[in-house]
Amino acid sequence: MKRITSQITQLFTKPSKKELIRNLEDLLGFRPKHIPYYELALMHRSKLDEAESNNERLEFLGDAILGAIIAEYLFKKYPTQDEGFLTELRSRIVRRESLNNVAMRMGLNKLVQYNQQDKGLGRSHIFGNALEALIGAIYLDIGFEKTRNFIQCNFLKLYIDIGNLEATDTNFKNKLLNWSQRNGHTISFVTLEEKNDGSRKLFTIGVLLDEQLVASGNSFNKKDAGQVAAQKAIAVLIPSLE
Amino acid sequence: MKRITSQITQLFTKPSKKELIRNLEDLLGFRPKHIPYYELALMHRSKLDEAESNNERLEFLGDAILGAIIAEYLFKKYPTQDEGFLTELRSRIVRRESLNNVAMRMGLNKLVQYNQQDKGLGRSHIFGNALEALIGAIYLDIGFEKTRNFIQCNFLKLYIDIGNLEATDTNFKNKLLNWSQRNGHTISFVTLEEKNDGSRKLFTIGVLLDEQLVASGNSFNKKDAGQVAAQKAIAVLIPSLE
Repeated sequence: MKRITSQITQLFTKPSKKELIRNLEDLLGFRPKHIPYYELALMHRSKLDEAESNNERLEFLGDAILGAIIAEYLFKKYPTQDEGFLTELRSRIVRRESLNNVAMRMGLNKLVQYNQQDKGLGRSHIFGNALEALIGAIYLDIGFEKTRNFIQCNFLKLYIDIGNLEATDTNFKNKLLNWSQRNGHTISFVTLEEKNDGSRKLFTIGVLLDEQLVASGNSFNKKDAGQVAAQKAIAVLIPSLE
Repeated sequence: MKRITSQITQLFTKPSKKELIRNLEDLLGFRPKHIPYYELALMHRSKLDEAESNNERLEFLGDAILGAIIAEYLFKKYPTQDEGFLTELRSRIVRRESLNNVAMRMGLNKLVQYNQQDKGLGRSHIFGNALEALIGAIYLDIGFEKTRNFIQCNFLKLYIDIGNLEATDTNFKNKLLNWSQRNGHTISFVTLEEKNDGSRKLFTIGVLLDEQLVASGNSFNKKDAGQVAAQKAIAVLIPSLE
């Protein structure tokens, strides 16, 4: 009975300011200064609908700050990769599902104020959005440099497996090669064409299955063209894997 | 003859380091420190195609830094506007055409190194992209706070008319009202319905022409619903204005 009462209490009351500060300190690894920013970051629209008092404006700010910090991090970590690679890898780090997952693992779901009776919120990524809002709050509270430290030493280090995200880049090629090995086939990639398109070169890469052309793909770099070709080959050869 | 020779020289040679520093100083309003960042920012792919030696990686970085700085600027300038408004206004400031236009007015086109014989570059926004790359270079050279100063005091202040960009938000309503005044009609907007949709309210706004309903629009806020309705009314009443 006591447990149910405590759950009901948790459903309908805000944590005390002292409790919130302690929870934030655990979550952030530093003592937040200006608490109203954080209270706002944790306030979902389903509780308070006005733009000034829910976390959506802070989410806009935090999304931009996070994007800039991740951009710099990748720019420096991968000094020879082109901007297509950097853009793709960043989008994998900051995509809604990924942020929502990180927010849950951080325990942010226990701090966000939202209307728990509202069944329509299931797929709305409120915790990932609150994480972005929290980053907006951190930025306003402690400035860019320290927010960058927080993102790099906490968010990226503890919750993001960049190696794994990077590896999924070669997903289609890997999938196709794994399948061919399991099924006793030989897959190879060949450059079918390189032609000038304005100032750039357009590559056409073909996929050979046991030396028979099964698909081809175009792109402005060979690696991407290979991916496109592999994806098309999968669609033809093993549609169940798509 | 001397003039032609000088033009040809300008076409095929890089400016001297000293000249570049002077030009940058004029453009930026401060003395740049680490010149190689700026040389890279001004190097278009049509001159050097490798990712490490053209400006595309810096463009990726600068785009993100600019986005964050503009986000904060708008967040603080419009404390009561919702994130939809902020997102829309930012996208108008940083869209390709707008940046390309600013870059030309700054004179960046005279500094960018690109293959002037390449006719395929016409619509590629190389100067706007170089402006983003330049912002990436500024960030690496002087850090976030000073880059923010540069963006606010130079880029935004001298080249962006935010009031005008903001005003185009009410374009459809204004267009419709102007037309009705010129043609002796009365246009009015009415709320036809407010219904709950999950945690949000969905508004339906109708457009009345001389008290006759001619179109309606839905959105999660009244202002946007009015815009949608006005746009539909224009399509019906004055298709030539669309």
